[in-house]
Amino acid sequence: MSSADGGRGVSAYVVPTEDPHMSEYPPEHLKFRQYISGFTGTAGTVVVTTDAALLWTDGRYFLQAAAELGPEWTLMKAGTAGCPDLEDWLATNLPQGARVGIDPWVHTVNSVRNLQRKLEDAGKVLVPLLSDGNLVGNIWGEGRPPAPSTPLRVHDMQWAGEDVPAKLGRMREQMRNAGATALLAPSLDEVAWLYNTRGGDVDHNPVALSYALITADSAVLYVDTAKVVNPVAQHLAEAGVQVKAYETLLDDVAAVAATGGRLWLDPARVSYAGAPTHGSAGGAREANGDHHVSNNGGSAAAGGGVKAPFRPVELPSPVTAAKAIKNPSELAGMREAHLRDAVAVCQFMKWLEDKVGSGATVSEVEVDEVLTGFRRQQQGFVETSFATIAGAGPNGAIIHYRAQPGSCRHVDDNTLLLLDSGGQYDCGTTDITRTVHTGTPSDHQRRCFTRVLQGHIALDSAIWPEGTPGAALDPLARLPLWREGLNYRHGTGHGVGAALNVHEGPQAISMRYHITTPLAPAMVCSNEPGYYEDGSFGVRIENLVVVVEKETPFRYAGQQYLGFERLTLVPMQAKLVDTALLSPQEAAWLDGYHREVWERVSPRMQDQPELLEWLRTNTRPLAEQLGAPA
Amino acid sequence: MSSADGGRGVSAYVVPTEDPHMSEYPPEHLKFRQYISGFTGTAGTVVVTTDAALLWTDGRYFLQAAAELGPEWTLMKAGTAGCPDLEDWLATNLPQGARVGIDPWVHTVNSVRNLQRKLEDAGKVLVPLLSDGNLVGNIWGEGRPPAPSTPLRVHDMQWAGEDVPAKLGRMREQMRNAGATALLAPSLDEVAWLYNTRGGDVDHNPVALSYALITADSAVLYVDTAKVVNPVAQHLAEAGVQVKAYETLLDDVAAVAATGGRLWLDPARVSYAGAPTHGSAGGAREANGDHHVSNNGGSAAAGGGVKAPFRPVELPSPVTAAKAIKNPSELAGMREAHLRDAVAVCQFMKWLEDKVGSGATVSEVEVDEVLTGFRRQQQGFVETSFATIAGAGPNGAIIHYRAQPGSCRHVDDNTLLLLDSGGQYDCGTTDITRTVHTGTPSDHQRRCFTRVLQGHIALDSAIWPEGTPGAALDPLARLPLWREGLNYRHGTGHGVGAALNVHEGPQAISMRYHITTPLAPAMVCSNEPGYYEDGSFGVRIENLVVVVEKETPFRYAGQQYLGFERLTLVPMQAKLVDTALLSPQEAAWLDGYHREVWERVSPRMQDQPELLEWLRTNTRPLAEQLGAPA
Repeated sequence: MSSADGGRGVSAYVVPTEDPHMSEYPPEHLKFRQYISGFTGTAGTVVVTTDAALLWTDGRYFLQAAAELGPEWTLMKAGTAGCPDLEDWLATNLPQGARVGIDPWVHTVNSVRNLQRKLEDAGKVLVPLLSDGNLVGNIWGEGRPPAPSTPLRVHDMQWAGEDVPAKLGRMREQMRNAGATALLAPSLDEVAWLYNTRGGDVDHNPVALSYALITADSAVLYVDTAKVVNPVAQHLAEAGVQVKAYETLLDDVAAVAATGGRLWLDPARVSYAGAPTHGSAGGAREANGDHHVSNNGGSAAAGGGVKAPFRPVELPSPVTAAKAIKNPSELAGMREAHLRDAVAVCQFMKWLEDKVGSGATVSEVEVDEVLTGFRRQQQGFVETSFATIAGAGPNGAIIHYRAQPGSCRHVDDNTLLLLDSGGQYDCGTTDITRTVHTGTPSDHQRRCFTRVLQGHIALDSAIWPEGTPGAALDPLARLPLWREGLNYRHGTGHGVGAALNVHEGPQAISMRYHITTPLAPAMVCSNEPGYYEDGSFGVRIENLVVVVEKETPFRYAGQQYLGFERLTLVPMQAKLVDTALLSPQEAAWLDGYHREVWERVSPRMQDQPELLEWLRTNTRPLAEQLGAPA
Repeated sequence: MSSADGGRGVSAYVVPTEDPHMSEYPPEHLKFRQYISGFTGTAGTVVVTTDAALLWTDGRYFLQAAAELGPEWTLMKAGTAGCPDLEDWLATNLPQGARVGIDPWVHTVNSVRNLQRKLEDAGKVLVPLLSDGNLVGNIWGEGRPPAPSTPLRVHDMQWAGEDVPAKLGRMREQMRNAGATALLAPSLDEVAWLYNTRGGDVDHNPVALSYALITADSAVLYVDTAKVVNPVAQHLAEAGVQVKAYETLLDDVAAVAATGGRLWLDPARVSYAGAPTHGSAGGAREANGDHHVSNNGGSAAAGGGVKAPFRPVELPSPVTAAKAIKNPSELAGMREAHLRDAVAVCQFMKWLEDKVGSGATVSEVEVDEVLTGFRRQQQGFVETSFATIAGAGPNGAIIHYRAQPGSCRHVDDNTLLLLDSGGQYDCGTTDITRTVHTGTPSDHQRRCFTRVLQGHIALDSAIWPEGTPGAALDPLARLPLWREGLNYRHGTGHGVGAALNVHEGPQAISMRYHITTPLAPAMVCSNEPGYYEDGSFGVRIENLVVVVEKETPFRYAGQQYLGFERLTLVPMQAKLVDTALLSPQEAAWLDGYHREVWERVSPRMQDQPELLEWLRTNTRPLAEQLGAPA
């Protein structure tokens, strides 16, 4: 990069993880931040200046980033004392008048507004480099993976449960209520849900690079048209969805703005380049910091030939909100996926016991391969829902660890293994973490496991009134750890798509208090407290759960009360439980869960007597399991 | 009020509870909202239009407001489904072009910005009526109470613990760090804390109508100078604090702005009229919606004779933050105040038992009088710290009930009484709620009381890492109620001043997630879950607690772990506890608390053998109290 003088020369360039769709997992072709830094985690932002290279990431990735970054890099541990925000760092550390470059396709409208304001206050300039392309992409060269080209497929109505016209009808009703004449859905899973399609452009996420744009009488899918082959072409045509080339979105969005239409866009999700007032203007700053939502209908569109100023409706996407509330078919699919998945995970757990019992060792990579192999035998399996985290011993403390052949650790007959994995099935998506010890756990490991289990149980058992956000429940999962002076550096629960992305919003169970979306009936979340001792071991216990109505003795103020139904049905290892720490209620919860696992999963194992016996043994009451010799 | 035509004629006028200092409890002279509406609660906002009169208030006051408002009033139940925000109501219900009037002294900078934006979006106009005075004050006439005139007094160093120069030094350090050249403290308790003075202008709050303005080399108290008599005049002079007339603040603040100074003001606390860019401009709107904080020092002041635009430092007041962290002398004073208070409350509880035991009935007003009488006998008692809430039977369900002579209910030998009261002492401030039954509680009352008690215990027993906001702990106090389908419509805990206002910030234990102030060591809070059954009864259990460091077996990430120490030491009534619902840990908590009460309070009762015996009886282990006949 050139010096700060002249032209659009910039003295710093910001590279986030995101692609133009703000995907958590971009396709390999668009992993700019990973290419430039070497850091492979799913969250992090790079700043390259004329004399420094920095990566900001969060507590899940401190150890991994430290291992992957070269010596020329500075690791910025976001959220720890003394670590400035990226914006503040730029504002403070660059010379007066410095120009900071970005690719406006990979930054949201909100993040650009925020960065613009902070830099301006500090006498610096933000320069969105639209016509220059992505500076990292420009230097990537031959090694760059090609753009993905997997054809789309139809998501079967058996599992989708609602056809495209019905979904469009619901979105249009909300557009009318919000005074919007058009709606832009920029996230890949929004498009897939809306049009009942699935794709294969991104590892683990069954989505395709695409946008959706809806008006009162049209619905368009912007995608590489080569991916639209039959039967999906026919499916879309029958649903009245028009297919257009991916690149034409910007023209159509600009046309909405030019004709005075009011476009619904979420400034926290839509890229700066994709918002119509910025798209064609490129580097020039347009002061849109004062945009805000108004509800006085489409009056701006009434001027006919007069060109009215563009006034978007800036609200979270109604597609994201609708997608989070699963319909009965989606819930049936999720339950079915978890039964298939339970068989595969149990097969693996028995296999591992037998293997290390025979004196063999198993590498972390082999753990992944064998487990995925069992899943692959299940009906409707498509792929893993994320990269398997198989952390043996100290690797269990690396929260989003990814084992590499050659360098990975091995499981022997005395290893604590943290195993976080999941599957994409035709009918649904799974995500499960079990922590198992292949030998005799230490008292300290049992104590830590039991505290994590108590947090898991407290959250699973909670009852709360409608309207409560997930943030209110997050501390329940931490309290038993806090009492010991322990904690974990990640949220307790994320939303999960139905045969879609394993991470989805808008709900979350975390201490990010700005997420105020209530936990509503038919939302799917994870419940995954953990504890990680750097250099030693990690514990995490994760089930997926569905929010359901609960009967309560009273209903104060007429409110509905909610709780969880468990989707994940795999035993938790009894030998890791310190029963002296459990209350009678907690012990009863674990016995009840194991009874439920036995009753629901055993019918799927009738043709595998040894596996059935393994399940019976591992779902007995806790007292019986711990009392009897193994 | 005139019609919407002509001059500054407004078609709606907004009257909040607040005075120019945003006091929760304004002096009688400034209770504009109470005068116009008749509603005496501490929270509510009135809108008067040409044909309607509306009052917005929250769940604590629905019943009280319905009882106090005349038939011409509409009660707007804030926070319930279908009730629009006041701002949205104005935006939606007034005709296009309508003008909405306010007294800019009783609205904060932030609230004016917010209202201005919402009205402008809806095609309406906000009109700050500075030169017209307060429209309610203008029609108040002869019955209006006079401006208060109580002299100031010195808050003794024994209880203040830090002298004024030391406090000023700490504030000036923070001003330098924030790039501010002056600091405006608009809240009455900020001024009192900063200058170690107390006043008597407001019932229950030992404060005086005043402002403080600090620069690097000056500290001014703006107050009715007639209130500054010796020894307070000498105290202020020795501390280097200049006393000026209350009304001269605006000139001095304008001078700071005019000379390019950077004034630190909290836009959420400073009145719109008091912020220098607005003060002299009166009704004319000055678009300051874009003010935001910058940290690049006092460079705006460098222009000398050139008039630079006024750039305030908009941050929460450092005085409020410092005041919330009690020093050892303040904590010693709070502990002492609670011991004195415990004796008075126990005296009352014994008196009530004896009285109704003799067949007499006691009115709610008499409850207040007798209890306050016992407090008055205690050393250093000044006044009650808020209006006593003595709610017998159904009145207990009115969350901030105030008994009135003639209309109030009576306590007989079978009444559930909710009693929330507190005292201002020379050394500290108390706030306690006990719910007692004078006969035999119903099973349902015991069940509800026990659920509230379990919530109280869960919060009291929590351990959490530094940095955790009170919002994270609030649900702990609700979970036992939620499980029954019960809840309460108020926060669980508020900050409490040391010999100052019984409600203070910045911390809170509530589900208002925008309050992210961590609960830090030496903060004082209330712990007061409740349950209210309209028309039937109310339960609340309230102790004051101090945040203290806690020893934990581990200290993950080097973090400090925190918990509570109890200040309030008065027995909780055993007969209201349903022991079948309590866990062994909860029963042990209650026994431990009663042991603590006995050990610390009994030495203060050595000269009152009958009271001592009452305390002994009521602090025995739960099993013993419930097993033995009364």
